[in-house]
Amino acid sequence: MKKSRRDFNNLLIRGAGSFVLAGPFNAARATLGPITPNQKLGIVLVGLGSYSTYQLAPALQQTQYCYLAGIVTGTPEKEKTWSDKYDIPKENIYNYENFDKISENPDIHIVYVVLPNSMHAEFSIRAANAGKHVICEKPMAMNVSECNAIIDACKKAKVKLGVGYRLHSEPYTRELKSIVHKKDFGEVRYVTADAGYYSGSNPGQWRLNKALAGGGALMNMGVYSIQSAIYGSGMNPVSVSAQEFSTRPEYFKDTDETITAQFEFPNGATGNIMTSHNVNINRHYSNFENGWVELNPANHYGPLAGGSSDNRNWDFPHERQQKLQMDDFAKHILHDAPNLIPGEMGKRDMIIVEAIYQSIKEGGKKIPLDLGNMGL
Amino acid sequence: MKKSRRDFNNLLIRGAGSFVLAGPFNAARATLGPITPNQKLGIVLVGLGSYSTYQLAPALQQTQYCYLAGIVTGTPEKEKTWSDKYDIPKENIYNYENFDKISENPDIHIVYVVLPNSMHAEFSIRAANAGKHVICEKPMAMNVSECNAIIDACKKAKVKLGVGYRLHSEPYTRELKSIVHKKDFGEVRYVTADAGYYSGSNPGQWRLNKALAGGGALMNMGVYSIQSAIYGSGMNPVSVSAQEFSTRPEYFKDTDETITAQFEFPNGATGNIMTSHNVNINRHYSNFENGWVELNPANHYGPLAGGSSDNRNWDFPHERQQKLQMDDFAKHILHDAPNLIPGEMGKRDMIIVEAIYQSIKEGGKKIPLDLGNMGL
Repeated sequence: MKKSRRDFNNLLIRGAGSFVLAGPFNAARATLGPITPNQKLGIVLVGLGSYSTYQLAPALQQTQYCYLAGIVTGTPEKEKTWSDKYDIPKENIYNYENFDKISENPDIHIVYVVLPNSMHAEFSIRAANAGKHVICEKPMAMNVSECNAIIDACKKAKVKLGVGYRLHSEPYTRELKSIVHKKDFGEVRYVTADAGYYSGSNPGQWRLNKALAGGGALMNMGVYSIQSAIYGSGMNPVSVSAQEFSTRPEYFKDTDETITAQFEFPNGATGNIMTSHNVNINRHYSNFENGWVELNPANHYGPLAGGSSDNRNWDFPHERQQKLQMDDFAKHILHDAPNLIPGEMGKRDMIIVEAIYQSIKEGGKKIPLDLGNMGL
Repeated sequence: MKKSRRDFNNLLIRGAGSFVLAGPFNAARATLGPITPNQKLGIVLVGLGSYSTYQLAPALQQTQYCYLAGIVTGTPEKEKTWSDKYDIPKENIYNYENFDKISENPDIHIVYVVLPNSMHAEFSIRAANAGKHVICEKPMAMNVSECNAIIDACKKAKVKLGVGYRLHSEPYTRELKSIVHKKDFGEVRYVTADAGYYSGSNPGQWRLNKALAGGGALMNMGVYSIQSAIYGSGMNPVSVSAQEFSTRPEYFKDTDETITAQFEFPNGATGNIMTSHNVNINRHYSNFENGWVELNPANHYGPLAGGSSDNRNWDFPHERQQKLQMDDFAKHILHDAPNLIPGEMGKRDMIIVEAIYQSIKEGGKKIPLDLGNMGL
């Protein structure tokens, strides 16, 4: 039933112009509202931590193609705060137990999973099984096997899947990607990216708990460095070696504090990345045959700053990256625009994460990677 | 005889004010000119390649405490060109065979060895044995054992020894060193440096010949990255791991093309460097508890450019770095000013170079370093 609803929706959504139809039948609700290509899609945020609170919810007040339709929270007090603040109807508020009933809710088109990493797979799969499109926050999951399970569930349910790599919608990053793609400065020869922050003095935070985060700096900021190296070169690496560094083992009991890694790319270019929970840093640099591009900051919430060797002034208007990201995903659903951040991209990065941990385990050994064009 | 001449010179040079004496006795010449603390010391350049031609000789037209007194060349045509251009008397022109007769020449106080790396040790030692102070271009020698031989020869001959790391006299670098030393931004947490250039399409150049250069990018530009990591952190590393990358093995037949290396520092900070003969790059970045410093370019002939997180405007006047460097060395001799670039610094860097090659040979294994404060 759910499946046929999605299929029918897709038909409608991909239909022409402002043609309006009554929504498809859903087992649990007699009628659904009309759906059109001009409609704003309803997003439900699963997990109301700081990223939902200070980034996603405010961004959803600015989005053109989607809006904050509902919330899923395990904290009853948040139900009232959020519904008051964002005018969320009671029937669009869920907890982790009754979450699956979301399948019966025609207001919700997209489930955005903003939970600790260990819960990404479970809730992405439950969302897919509920017939909803899925955005899964980065890192996509705890490991490659979970990424596969999410991708399979979304394929099976015929729903769209995006990963929360907001920078693919961000203009500085898009400009960098365009320069790389069009070879404005020739071939890439070297790419380096450092991403980290000082994690302070709260050892109880979930990002330092391996059972919840799957790893430390690498799983959190390291995926930005990996992303940077790949979109900053336009290629997937063919090998990686890596090293781990520790300054405060008594604080970072459970997870990696600082990691460096080196990539070989198919054209012979070298990649050199660092990530840390001990260093405030946020930089990207791509070096080409005939020039360079630098972004600094490169991956925080913006405004970003960038420059290139041709002295062009990089001065793009700042908009909330999450607004752009969620609108791009909604346009993918509504208008068949490209999916800028497909699940395969998140899975590819997790393959690299696993190879980095393996290299560290093996004393810095070079680990071959066979990624083809996955996620490019 | 030579020894007593040096000792006597030192006595004179360290004497007060403008007190003038006839020079000490030299076996080969009946009289030497007067030497005073205000005197300009005579420098002889050994090897008239592009660095001597375009950097050192022009710099010696601007120096206050030393001047271009002579040349040593194996190319007879250069004798005339140089003596015409710089008004160098015939008796101050040597070739590699009669070089040792320089001991008899009272005009020459300092021998600056600007030859391919494989000849650094031989000519530095011959210069010391001739009773002359020595500046040895970087990298100091082919290996640690040669560095030891140079240091020993200079000690035995009681002459001063400096290495050609011009940046220690350069104001941007000195400002960085001062910030690190005074902990203006707190402890260093991360330091990264990339130094390289595209070596073009001349496979015959001596820098690509292992017998002459001792190695490739690492021996040439890599020592800048090593230097950067050390003065950008204020510490000697306690371990290093390294990786080698190759894009054009048919061109770089004999020497390393691109190398990355990671350092651990005593306070737990991480260092991450890259050097290449395939990438035009020249950057330094030090990250501290409460700020950062960036130099870009960081180690070319200048003007350099820099900035720091406190928004201070780094705008130092540009002077030829080699002028500043040679004057600082002359002041070390004349006025007992500190030796900014002692032989131990060059030796320390060569210990690190050897450890980097060893790590690469052992598949990226972490190599412990026991440097103490050598060269700091």
